[in-house]
Amino acid sequence: MLIIDGLQYCNWSERIFRDMQAGGVSAVHVTVSYWEDFRETVERLTAWNRRFETYPELIFLGRGAADAARARDEGRTAIFFGAQNCSPMEDDIGLIQVLHDLGLRFMQLSYNNQSLLATGCYEAEDPGITRMGREAIREMNRAGLVIDMSHSAERSTLEAIELSQRPIAITHANPHDWHPARRNKSPEVLRALGQSGGMLGLSLYPHHLKDGGDCSLAAFCAMAARTVEVMGVERVGIGSDLCQDQPDSVVEWMRNGTWTKTLDYGEGSAAQAEFPPQQDWFQSNRDLPGLAKGLRDAGFDAAGVDKIMGGNWLDFFERSFAPKP
Amino acid sequence: MLIIDGLQYCNWSERIFRDMQAGGVSAVHVTVSYWEDFRETVERLTAWNRRFETYPELIFLGRGAADAARARDEGRTAIFFGAQNCSPMEDDIGLIQVLHDLGLRFMQLSYNNQSLLATGCYEAEDPGITRMGREAIREMNRAGLVIDMSHSAERSTLEAIELSQRPIAITHANPHDWHPARRNKSPEVLRALGQSGGMLGLSLYPHHLKDGGDCSLAAFCAMAARTVEVMGVERVGIGSDLCQDQPDSVVEWMRNGTWTKTLDYGEGSAAQAEFPPQQDWFQSNRDLPGLAKGLRDAGFDAAGVDKIMGGNWLDFFERSFAPKP
Repeated sequence: MLIIDGLQYCNWSERIFRDMQAGGVSAVHVTVSYWEDFRETVERLTAWNRRFETYPELIFLGRGAADAARARDEGRTAIFFGAQNCSPMEDDIGLIQVLHDLGLRFMQLSYNNQSLLATGCYEAEDPGITRMGREAIREMNRAGLVIDMSHSAERSTLEAIELSQRPIAITHANPHDWHPARRNKSPEVLRALGQSGGMLGLSLYPHHLKDGGDCSLAAFCAMAARTVEVMGVERVGIGSDLCQDQPDSVVEWMRNGTWTKTLDYGEGSAAQAEFPPQQDWFQSNRDLPGLAKGLRDAGFDAAGVDKIMGGNWLDFFERSFAPKP
Repeated sequence: MLIIDGLQYCNWSERIFRDMQAGGVSAVHVTVSYWEDFRETVERLTAWNRRFETYPELIFLGRGAADAARARDEGRTAIFFGAQNCSPMEDDIGLIQVLHDLGLRFMQLSYNNQSLLATGCYEAEDPGITRMGREAIREMNRAGLVIDMSHSAERSTLEAIELSQRPIAITHANPHDWHPARRNKSPEVLRALGQSGGMLGLSLYPHHLKDGGDCSLAAFCAMAARTVEVMGVERVGIGSDLCQDQPDSVVEWMRNGTWTKTLDYGEGSAAQAEFPPQQDWFQSNRDLPGLAKGLRDAGFDAAGVDKIMGGNWLDFFERSFAPKP
């Protein structure tokens, strides 16, 4: 079984890379930017380059699907870069190609707020994809940079699916009718995503789970089974949103960046501003293989489990990262 | 008579500064940024600092209304900085104070396209002021940085007028019912702007004029008289949008920045992509005093002419540029 995680933002360390190895995790899409502009994103990449140099027996930069397969064969983890906002391209469409050249493989069009390209899920209004957004989608399609709408609003997401000539991803979210978090996705979005050949990464972040950190593995896997009924068994994977070892200052920064002088609590609240405690059955990358057993218990056959644990992401990587002339 | 021009973006030179002096122009709001980010905006400011050092007998930096009065007394021109987009503050609300410290006195919340703060007049949809936009308006009010909605869309403009605790400006535009250019403003916007104590700078840019460059001085001044009926004689000034000596590459850059790989023609068209030729009665700053005669001929009394030619802007400067605790 090949395991791929569709999104993590940990406080990276040797310990976490060893967790990945112990968990048999062959590829992880890691967030390099939330609010970082181009130059700051490059700093995040140079930090990764130092990690690749320091831990070559554990991790290396993934650029294509073949790197995930190679990582499995070698017992390492291929790291695929992504951004949770379009901040790294600033207002320059030319930076899309540059970011792809530097290894970026996913980019969200908006993060909670309105961006230059699309609307985020916390805005009161959602006018859909902007003029620049249409240009950016075309260029991302050409370059092989995957459109990720995890933190975007409904209409913007549906329009992105429609406008994009290549399948898009929602790397980390769950169905809204299972748990009505603002970040979870409507049946319409999930259906359109599935029909267009896109991918949903099911999130293990407590705010996205029914009963939060008390959600059981069985309940999570039953939700996975229902999601597969809506989207098809080829269209669902894991996007754990694991934020292991991050201090609470990081979640405050994720929510507030530099856009406000007051405090925004996002999915939390003033009373629960910090990172929520993780459920006991998912504390680290070592727990990812345990999901496979849960999926079997929820009724998936072996082929279905393989697809959800990594096969579908591998197939999506194969279809998504190469440039199209 | 004190003459103030509410917006120019010329290819600055000694010749133009001498035109200002010959025309008796005591203050000009000059654009320093369209798409420039913070660092690029600082480069535009250092270029102005060199001009201030080179031509101290002609120009100096204006920071408050008293500088416009001083310029008149000394036969010089006070230069007030402004940005036609929120690009200079990037995504950092803290840069609003920094930009004010550096002399910025006006900032548009959007330029043609959707920005992080508001919608531009060329977008298909206008969802109004964004989450970050509300924060930015509050901070601009505090710092004394005037909100300019010249290139913004209807709903965003009405919301900015309502949300702002201080009067806002539309530094360069005309009534839409006189000439239905996308950039000209509806009666609702003009009424709300007037009632809130804001200012409209009447534009002399041919694309904003009925009959374009063939518009007569009499027709322009008759429009001014009708606009005063809607807004009040205290709420109207001049914002010529003079782009003297600019090469056509500049208007292409204004329209396209780095947001598209195709060509957008904005107010022009593929057949008329270049800067439109100026009407014969307004070629340079030397022609500004001629407007006063046109206004008299259109029926304004001497006090009304004084207000429109500069008195209203001077009063607005007095009310707008100081910080509020």
